[in-house]
Amino acid sequence: MSLVLGVDAGGTSSRAAVFSLSGSALGRGTSGGGNPVALGLPGALANLEVAVRGSLAAVDPAAVKAVVVGLAGMGALRDPAARAAFDAAFAATGVGVAPSVVGDVVVAFAAGTAAPSGTVLIAGTGAIAAKIIDRQVAETADGFGWQLGDEGSGFWLGRAAARATIRALPAVAPGGLADLVLRELLPGPRGDDLVGPLAQAVQNAPPLALARLAPLVSRAAAAGDPVACSIVAEAARLLAGTVSQVRGPGERTPIVLAGSVLTSEGPVRRAVQDLLEGATVAGDGAGAAAWLAAREVLGSKAAPLHPLFAGR
Amino acid sequence: MSLVLGVDAGGTSSRAAVFSLSGSALGRGTSGGGNPVALGLPGALANLEVAVRGSLAAVDPAAVKAVVVGLAGMGALRDPAARAAFDAAFAATGVGVAPSVVGDVVVAFAAGTAAPSGTVLIAGTGAIAAKIIDRQVAETADGFGWQLGDEGSGFWLGRAAARATIRALPAVAPGGLADLVLRELLPGPRGDDLVGPLAQAVQNAPPLALARLAPLVSRAAAAGDPVACSIVAEAARLLAGTVSQVRGPGERTPIVLAGSVLTSEGPVRRAVQDLLEGATVAGDGAGAAAWLAAREVLGSKAAPLHPLFAGR
Repeated sequence: MSLVLGVDAGGTSSRAAVFSLSGSALGRGTSGGGNPVALGLPGALANLEVAVRGSLAAVDPAAVKAVVVGLAGMGALRDPAARAAFDAAFAATGVGVAPSVVGDVVVAFAAGTAAPSGTVLIAGTGAIAAKIIDRQVAETADGFGWQLGDEGSGFWLGRAAARATIRALPAVAPGGLADLVLRELLPGPRGDDLVGPLAQAVQNAPPLALARLAPLVSRAAAAGDPVACSIVAEAARLLAGTVSQVRGPGERTPIVLAGSVLTSEGPVRRAVQDLLEGATVAGDGAGAAAWLAAREVLGSKAAPLHPLFAGR
Repeated sequence: MSLVLGVDAGGTSSRAAVFSLSGSALGRGTSGGGNPVALGLPGALANLEVAVRGSLAAVDPAAVKAVVVGLAGMGALRDPAARAAFDAAFAATGVGVAPSVVGDVVVAFAAGTAAPSGTVLIAGTGAIAAKIIDRQVAETADGFGWQLGDEGSGFWLGRAAARATIRALPAVAPGGLADLVLRELLPGPRGDDLVGPLAQAVQNAPPLALARLAPLVSRAAAAGDPVACSIVAEAARLLAGTVSQVRGPGERTPIVLAGSVLTSEGPVRRAVQDLLEGATVAGDGAGAAAWLAAREVLGSKAAPLHPLFAGR
């Protein structure tokens, strides 16, 4: 039996999936981030290998006929030595074919549609939009990182929650956004003056830790907290604005929503879908990468199998 | 001869000055930051001791009759053990009187005026405004740190410059703000695609490193760069807004401008002075702390000596 292997390697986790050519999932593996720019090449390759070996546990690696890896930070592989190390790490797993490497953005788009061209919006810890033409990135918007951009991302939402909270003090409505944020950042009994301790707690944590407050915004908005609702509305406006930088107003191609902020059911996704009519939510990234690998074997005959791979 | 000792201990530097009671500077010492919250108590005390010993080099420490220390993070001294360690560090310098500790904000205010009450706006790496009543902090605004606030601060200016630059790419006018920022963050020959490398350079540096771009905004604004001019105008608007949170529109007390962003001649200070009419610029912080110490000895007779101590 011929197999295909797909890998979706992001900043914080890597997922691998082995499929039969008919679209049956035969193995999955997960591990830490696979972005060689963020983690350094050795760390990224070690994680990728763990995920790939996990997915191959119950199959013959030699039966794998095509591999597609969607890789955040794939630019690092332009260096021939880095690319050779990458290929060697794959060969070490027993897979006999060299992997095709595409941007994680391309895989995210394929996780939402079998179409070759359109727009993908990814909002996880960061945020980026890309115009995809023939399954290649033609143009991107934002993706500038948390200091310079990533507007509407999980980090952005969490920072907005903390900013709103410190400005609301000392007024804190029980169960509202500020209350949820304070319970997360200042657990235990609270003193009278919370401004200093809250500023200090944020200062002492790694900057990106603010992203963990993002789900509190969704929770508070779902419960009707007006500040949370306005943060959600602003995030959706910013995300839609990022999309508009790479997509003409009259375009009719698919829009795919990906990343943890948008694949989770909730107010942020609903607000974005209100602004980007007809946008579809991405399914399984590793499966989508495996589907791209199946396309390398089957060509256009892979199209009807897309839902089996991408799980939607 | 009776002496007084003043110390201005901020987050990144500490300055000590010894004066005669008639306002002659007799010794100065400087060292690293003295904020016990930011640096930990032992590191802060070690720095303070270096600055104090430097100021005492040419005088008899036993002649010091009063000491005032303006301390960022003075809340840490509410802990009795911390306060005892603080007093012991001073005693070790040979000074025979226990120091009075006030907020660095109080010293900044005194560096601009001999009046007991008014408003001080400090914009260095961070930004805070305080209402001062009888040389005590009655209320503050902002000072929330770079993640949650510090709006219009050096960090804010630098981040705004980097944000504008990454959005301006690939257009870069020679000598304009984006050009200055790129020269600072991406020295050496530039490739074609600068978005990724610029985002990466910011990501790889400590977050507060963006503050070092603040002088580039002033430089570009002084040369007429329209983006830099609008960043300066926005910073001034934010800083004036912070002041308005602690100052009624009809108040007639002095406004003192302090911190490196505002004590430096340039477009930011001019824009703030346009919005806060009659605001005066702070002089020497350590001298002002020494003047507060002189007040402890001389009472109201110290008032006319203020310019000799604060250097303005």
